[in-house]
Amino acid sequence: MDVTAEPGLVGYSLPRTRTGRSSLVPPPPWHYSGDFLIVEYRCDPDAARAYLPPELAPGGDLGSAAAIFADWQSCSDGGDELLDPVRAQYKEFFVVLAATYRDEPVTRCPFMWVDQGMPLVRGLVQGFPKKPGSIWMTRPVTVGKAGPRLEAGGRFGASLAAADRRLAEATLTLTGVSEEGPTVNAPPLFNTRLFPAWEPEEEPLAEHVWAGGRDREASPVWEGEATLRFFESPADELADLAPVEVTRGFWLSFGYTVDGGRRVR
Amino acid sequence: MDVTAEPGLVGYSLPRTRTGRSSLVPPPPWHYSGDFLIVEYRCDPDAARAYLPPELAPGGDLGSAAAIFADWQSCSDGGDELLDPVRAQYKEFFVVLAATYRDEPVTRCPFMWVDQGMPLVRGLVQGFPKKPGSIWMTRPVTVGKAGPRLEAGGRFGASLAAADRRLAEATLTLTGVSEEGPTVNAPPLFNTRLFPAWEPEEEPLAEHVWAGGRDREASPVWEGEATLRFFESPADELADLAPVEVTRGFWLSFGYTVDGGRRVR
Amino acid sequence: MDVTAEPGLVGYSLPRTRTGRSSLVPPPPWHYSGDFLIVEYRCDPDAARAYLPPELAPGGDLGSAAAIFADWQSCSDGGDELLDPVRAQYKEFFVVLAATYRDEPVTRCPFMWVDQGMPLVRGLVQGFPKKPGSIWMTRPVTVGKAGPRLEAGGRFGASLAAADRRLAEATLTLTGVSEEGPTVNAPPLFNTRLFPAWEPEEEPLAEHVWAGGRDREASPVWEGEATLRFFESPADELADLAPVEVTRGFWLSFGYTVDGGRRVR
Amino acid sequence: MDVTAEPGLVGYSLPRTRTGRSSLVPPPPWHYSGDFLIVEYRCDPDAARAYLPPELAPGGDLGSAAAIFADWQSCSDGGDELLDPVRAQYKEFFVVLAATYRDEPVTRCPFMWVDQGMPLVRGLVQGFPKKPGSIWMTRPVTVGKAGPRLEAGGRFGASLAAADRRLAEATLTLTGVSEEGPTVNAPPLFNTRLFPAWEPEEEPLAEHVWAGGRDREASPVWEGEATLRFFESPADELADLAPVEVTRGFWLSFGYTVDGGRRVR
Repeated sequence: MDVTAEPGLVGYSLPRTRTGRSSLVPPPPWHYSGDFLIVEYRCDPDAARAYLPPELAPGGDLGSAAAIFADWQSCSDGGDELLDPVRAQYKEFFVVLAATYRDEPVTRCPFMWVDQGMPLVRGLVQGFPKKPGSIWMTRPVTVGKAGPRLEAGGRFGASLAAADRRLAEATLTLTGVSEEGPTVNAPPLFNTRLFPAWEPEEEPLAEHVWAGGRDREASPVWEGEATLRFFESPADELADLAPVEVTRGFWLSFGYTVDGGRRVR
Repeated sequence: MDVTAEPGLVGYSLPRTRTGRSSLVPPPPWHYSGDFLIVEYRCDPDAARAYLPPELAPGGDLGSAAAIFADWQSCSDGGDELLDPVRAQYKEFFVVLAATYRDEPVTRCPFMWVDQGMPLVRGLVQGFPKKPGSIWMTRPVTVGKAGPRLEAGGRFGASLAAADRRLAEATLTLTGVSEEGPTVNAPPLFNTRLFPAWEPEEEPLAEHVWAGGRDREASPVWEGEATLRFFESPADELADLAPVEVTRGFWLSFGYTVDGGRRVR
Repeated sequence: MDVTAEPGLVGYSLPRTRTGRSSLVPPPPWHYSGDFLIVEYRCDPDAARAYLPPELAPGGDLGSAAAIFADWQSCSDGGDELLDPVRAQYKEFFVVLAATYRDEPVTRCPFMWVDQGMPLVRGLVQGFPKKPGSIWMTRPVTVGKAGPRLEAGGRFGASLAAADRRLAEATLTLTGVSEEGPTVNAPPLFNTRLFPAWEPEEEPLAEHVWAGGRDREASPVWEGEATLRFFESPADELADLAPVEVTRGFWLSFGYTVDGGRRVR
Repeated sequence: MDVTAEPGLVGYSLPRTRTGRSSLVPPPPWHYSGDFLIVEYRCDPDAARAYLPPELAPGGDLGSAAAIFADWQSCSDGGDELLDPVRAQYKEFFVVLAATYRDEPVTRCPFMWVDQGMPLVRGLVQGFPKKPGSIWMTRPVTVGKAGPRLEAGGRFGASLAAADRRLAEATLTLTGVSEEGPTVNAPPLFNTRLFPAWEPEEEPLAEHVWAGGRDREASPVWEGEATLRFFESPADELADLAPVEVTRGFWLSFGYTVDGGRRVR
């Protein structure tokens, strides 16, 4: 039975109530402001190829990848989450692979982890393959000795763990302001929304979508030398995309807004 | 674009890989074994009514409710999660309300919380309105002074918090073995699967489903006197369904298997 | 038996090993860089009085208090924790009360919570009455809509919970740069180190100490209007010191170094 | 300044208040009831030797060790924590090594981890070298397919992680009821209490103590074949004591009471 219009119970996601106030995921637009530590690298091209759905072609730079750690604050329009930051803050890690769709550059995200439940579910709505994990990133500081400055020599570290196994770690030593900034994660993200069917034999909801986003805003970008390692796990195959070569690292602050998107046509 | 058959990338849920091994939610059947602390109670009938979708009728016992704390271990067929218990264990809290569908008794779950990400997402697939939370329940013990025995006088407590606010707490003092056992949560669960659309203006996937389940197995059931309190929160409206009267409490172990279900027709 | 010199096993804290590398707390000096949200307020003077040890006098401003939320990054000399930030980052909440010692202004910290184990133990070494808790604070951002700017109108929130009960929450709306900055927490902290005895009938190690600290460094300080609320809990008596009046709030970044201190004489 | 008797402020541990109710660690006696997964094994004898303080001799079985996973519920006399189980439940992992003290068998615990703050601090009072970690253990079940039965063939797993790195994992496949039960961890624990000094140049409080305990009670013990692995970490040297040979595994429930102890003389 498809659910008919339910004026009594509302909400963008479950649970639906009379007010919609309890829904785990509020309706878009969603606003995001965060810090990014990005390591551009190259993985085994065959491994990258294996993670591209049939609609995507390898393009001319197969094996080009980026590992991205993000320390986010996020809110819905109206933004009352910001004053209750337990509901607004979370950290993420994801990998993007270079590919093409109809000869245009795109990025494909094969793996992603997040440390809070609401952005886990909201991410699945957007077609991000999120799983629960533990992510940590050094924060730059302006005073004291317990943190890097945003200047040449500033040193950052980051880690990802899931199911109590470390899956990735990175370091970044800044060399200076970046002229070009990160490029690997620039093309649009070609995501896949997937929601399993409940009846046996039925097909899941599965659709490719553009991740979207607007009103992108970035701070000055810092770049530097990076290291990156992935580790094996029986439950997470991230190590398939382990670095063969690490290109360059970047640190920046980034903000944008997401308010739904478009199905890929 | 709907996703065409992708022999290259498989998995019941994201992320899809060549092996399917990284998927957050493995395919059903899913096996569950857990301990339950159940408090049967009555809430304001008008409040209960407000939480029933139009397809359900109040039935003859509107306001009859149960608050259920569950301490679970769960695995997929093949069960390797059991040997890596960080991937198998979690705790939940949910409320069920008595209602009828086409004159037959059903239960409706308006609110649910879970303390791990995988069962959060798996629950949404099943139509449970799960949100992230923190749930704790006293465990019975057989030796030592730091826990109740499963015998008359054994005392249990349980709590639920979400977004760093306590939402519910309960106590249970056993009086003896229960002849009848809990009855409020016995009728089938009438769930709603909801997956928001991505394109603006499109309708979400929204369908009523039976939660299903087979091979139910229960231990002897203990019953006793219970207390139950709900608390206000700006982000969770559970207090709408606060107890007006607490009927009786129960403790039992329960196991079952879920392998998909049926849409409500 | 007092432990004789153990050249084989070394470490500032347990566990001691041949290298000292596994010790939970590394030896000082310890470096700290963090962001602070401070709410200066007044509590019931009699309640404040009850929390002062006999060595302290109320002074002329009994009831003057500050509630402090801190988002820290910390490292030992040599600082390898910074590149493994899971070992470097944590958040805290504490209250300080105005008092005097031998007619000189001091501050007294009756309650403190922290969200990680290492600074919990390190804090007890310093005489801070730390307990485990969950602390969250809005972070200022420079881009995007999901966070306040450090400018007039910027709005911050913060919360403390322990044992799954919210204990405190605060808001701060910036009005501008602060000329004077926070003053209540400026006088030296008069702490108490306490380590229970193991033999029955023996007295604990209990000594008053100055919390110490050097090389203090602060960013420009922002001030504004604040709100502050404390909540009851059976396990935490913070609500004894609830605000009767909220004076003013502040936001700043702060860094310093701690390398042991002095016993109060 | 040593703290003089403070009738105004009381508490076994900080924070001290008028009632003592907020103290992180309540006064003993402390009651414990838990489930244990024990793997008896042999490590490199030289590695074991390196972890024994000078007061202990290797004895005749140097290298004999046990890895112990414990899933605890604990309360103080009066026991109100049991009804608020967030304050009563935690999991631990520790290793014990065989040694002798004045020709009598003892055990020595070089490493220990716990997943909650209160037992972390209480453990340090007792001389256990506890650090914060994440510990998981399969629970036996009586119904359903999602857990082992306490019977031959029942399979258990357990893991320890700290600072987002997996440090240890074990499995246990039961073969039957154990006649003898575990023996390696039977001799009394020779612990070391260590509380750093605050004044530079002063010696820490450091004393060897017997861990103590009374009113020990155990369930029937199950034994079986076990596996055990330790992993490297820059912050934890557990891998020094990695298994060279795994002897046998055990599962049991255990309860006891601790109410202070005795210094080693």
